[in-house]
Amino acid sequence: MTPARVGFYVPAMSTVKPRTMPGVLELLPPEQIAFKRMLDTIRDVYERYAFLPIETPVVELTDVLFTKSGGETEKQVYFVQSTGDRQHGREPDLALRFDLTVPLARYVAEHEQKLQFPFRRYQIQRVYRGESAQRGRYREFYQCDIDVIGRDRLALEHDAEIPAVIADVFGRLNVGDFTIRLNNRRLLRGLLSGLGVGDAETQAAVLREIDKLEKRGPGRVAHTLTESGLDADLVRRLIDTLGQRGSNDEVLAALDRLDVADETFRAGLNELRRVVEMLRASQVDERRFQVDPAIARGLDYYTGTVYETRLDARPEFGSVCSGGRYDDLAGFYTKSKLPGVGISIGATRLFAALLEAGLLKAGESTVKVLVTRLDDTLGDDYLRLAARLRAANVPTEVYAEAARMKKQLAYADKAAIPFAVIMGGDEHARGVAQLKDLRSGEQWEVSRDDLAGAVRERLDRR
Amino acid sequence: MTPARVGFYVPAMSTVKPRTMPGVLELLPPEQIAFKRMLDTIRDVYERYAFLPIETPVVELTDVLFTKSGGETEKQVYFVQSTGDRQHGREPDLALRFDLTVPLARYVAEHEQKLQFPFRRYQIQRVYRGESAQRGRYREFYQCDIDVIGRDRLALEHDAEIPAVIADVFGRLNVGDFTIRLNNRRLLRGLLSGLGVGDAETQAAVLREIDKLEKRGPGRVAHTLTESGLDADLVRRLIDTLGQRGSNDEVLAALDRLDVADETFRAGLNELRRVVEMLRASQVDERRFQVDPAIARGLDYYTGTVYETRLDARPEFGSVCSGGRYDDLAGFYTKSKLPGVGISIGATRLFAALLEAGLLKAGESTVKVLVTRLDDTLGDDYLRLAARLRAANVPTEVYAEAARMKKQLAYADKAAIPFAVIMGGDEHARGVAQLKDLRSGEQWEVSRDDLAGAVRERLDRR
Repeated sequence: MTPARVGFYVPAMSTVKPRTMPGVLELLPPEQIAFKRMLDTIRDVYERYAFLPIETPVVELTDVLFTKSGGETEKQVYFVQSTGDRQHGREPDLALRFDLTVPLARYVAEHEQKLQFPFRRYQIQRVYRGESAQRGRYREFYQCDIDVIGRDRLALEHDAEIPAVIADVFGRLNVGDFTIRLNNRRLLRGLLSGLGVGDAETQAAVLREIDKLEKRGPGRVAHTLTESGLDADLVRRLIDTLGQRGSNDEVLAALDRLDVADETFRAGLNELRRVVEMLRASQVDERRFQVDPAIARGLDYYTGTVYETRLDARPEFGSVCSGGRYDDLAGFYTKSKLPGVGISIGATRLFAALLEAGLLKAGESTVKVLVTRLDDTLGDDYLRLAARLRAANVPTEVYAEAARMKKQLAYADKAAIPFAVIMGGDEHARGVAQLKDLRSGEQWEVSRDDLAGAVRERLDRR
Repeated sequence: MTPARVGFYVPAMSTVKPRTMPGVLELLPPEQIAFKRMLDTIRDVYERYAFLPIETPVVELTDVLFTKSGGETEKQVYFVQSTGDRQHGREPDLALRFDLTVPLARYVAEHEQKLQFPFRRYQIQRVYRGESAQRGRYREFYQCDIDVIGRDRLALEHDAEIPAVIADVFGRLNVGDFTIRLNNRRLLRGLLSGLGVGDAETQAAVLREIDKLEKRGPGRVAHTLTESGLDADLVRRLIDTLGQRGSNDEVLAALDRLDVADETFRAGLNELRRVVEMLRASQVDERRFQVDPAIARGLDYYTGTVYETRLDARPEFGSVCSGGRYDDLAGFYTKSKLPGVGISIGATRLFAALLEAGLLKAGESTVKVLVTRLDDTLGDDYLRLAARLRAANVPTEVYAEAARMKKQLAYADKAAIPFAVIMGGDEHARGVAQLKDLRSGEQWEVSRDDLAGAVRERLDRR
């Protein structure tokens, strides 16, 4: 085991401007703590729903990553190359992952024989995209993904798990009301077939347009579809159908009443109805999910249930959490058929947007107590006191320099540390210390034996 | 906010072999859970000692990263380049970080005006080195760093904090006995000056040799030093001095008795003595730290206290946690003087080594209960039951397919899920369920209202 810390630090004559590349979110500690809380909440809920953690390398082999060679993928990719390979003039054979789904596919195919199916994994890691740097676009950002992967088959039950997890996550994130919109791609494809659009490629093109309904409005989407050669009456019927609004039962009933004989439509509708029933059984608040036939998720990848999530008060954020059911995860890597269903939260963008909108604030520090240094001759006693607090699980900092008490308390206040402990020679002799709540200004004299308990109790009370 | 999930998934004609680049540690869920527990423990202890979290981008600008241009640094580096920059034939201006110390220096210099000093940060992230792939060498690995950075000055108190944190971390990791070895570079430099080796460059060269004492043995080190032109008698005295063994007080006393008039030596010795005293005040078990004058940490970077940590039963692991005091963190980026002290745990290598040595095992799953599916007509009732368990913070999985009970229990057992819940029509009608401990085989009938409590109680009891 070689020492992990290396040093390349020789005093320089001139300095280099310290900066990061554009498009990354680097936070100061108070915001980092808030972001960490968000990621911890997501992780805790994912674990509560029995998703298992995995992590994959940030760097993947290019031939594994770019299974669809020459496509859109490579345009936004960061290639990676070691010094040696560069010197030999080789083409890069490594790149940074651009999502967590391709690495998941590679992971499941690579380790298939050692995994149990259905394989339930969560993954909270950063991904990289060579985006042009602009507001709200990140080149490095966290994705928080869950997927359930079956082998050969995957029960519809799992389609209902995903919104239950997401409702729990967003409920705990305290981001206000939100709505998970549900739809089913089989229902959409069947509807199109029923309306006479049977060709798969045309269906895919129409679904991509439908995805724009909310953004562009029905008039413009209808115009585009008619321009592309679809019958105007058909387009009108389609857009009317997809515009259904009402309670989940009302929308399901309205879809049921449609004069569409297509079997795929019926199968998709039944799936959608079952997902709604299972969400109710899973105690998900009905105000948090909404059947919306206009949700298409443009990607051809999805084959069944699809999801989008909006913050009710912030429609301009767009979908903060999207996903769906797919037929085959890893066709590029294995002949096994691996159907799955999953969803992804783009946590970096969500956090930055919430922060900017004032919906989230940097709060209290992870540090709970500052042991101040009232009397410099008691230095080692302050260390003893801190050791006791830490042993009782209270995150504690010791002010290490002699300084005026006012300055020390201002330091704690600015750092959002909630409590200070003050102990002079008199208190020390009597076995007590002063515990000060820096928010309320209240102060109590507490026996040093009870100090950790007193802090814990006041922290728990909040 | 654009949807986070993208898809590049078109069925391929031929498959690509799913694999990662060599030199990365990718884990299956049971090991990943164990590794996550290790990282969580490290993080919790770091927070308990009031270190604040930061994260920096994995990609840094090359001119920021390679402040010492053309040196050893670049040989082991991964360069990063976007598709666009490659197409334009540009030289890469990005690279993956190779440690967390250079990014810390950049971070502190960049955000200096917004940080409070002393700045106490922890950082648990991956770093990248273009190592030749061989056993135990990783190209991607976690470092878990803590540093305290002062502005203009930094109290010696912080030098004693670091081993207190490390003793707490390794104590909680349950890796058996370990020893943090302490020394002081001023003491070493002063000793060399006192022996007549006053030239700084020669001192540095000698310290690099001293660092090899344990590995190569005193004979070979003495030979190398003599060969390089040092007086044989001096070399003998030096190696005798550094070979001092005994209790901390005995070694400190022996150093004190040395006939070395050098002021730097005396200052270093006083620092070392104070660090030992403060560690005692901080309630660190004296068996866990040992003054060892032969610890040099070869890097010129360190200027005062230095640390190394060994697992007593696994000396072949080498130092699993090293660091020290430095005079100036960020001279390349700012004219401010930023002294600091810190340490780093190479968590990936440590985890892999512990796993291989059998000192650490993949344990219980993060999932605590499997709700089995005894009666397929009760599907929604199993969902209701799972919702109640999850609402009570019990991580719960629902078996989603009809299958023989034996198969379902075998699934839970293989996944290391500790409990199963079994409920048939009769139990359902009576408002109860069977709770089965899969390790002991015990089974209890429990009211469904009490089920979460019953699981919690049994989990806490372990």
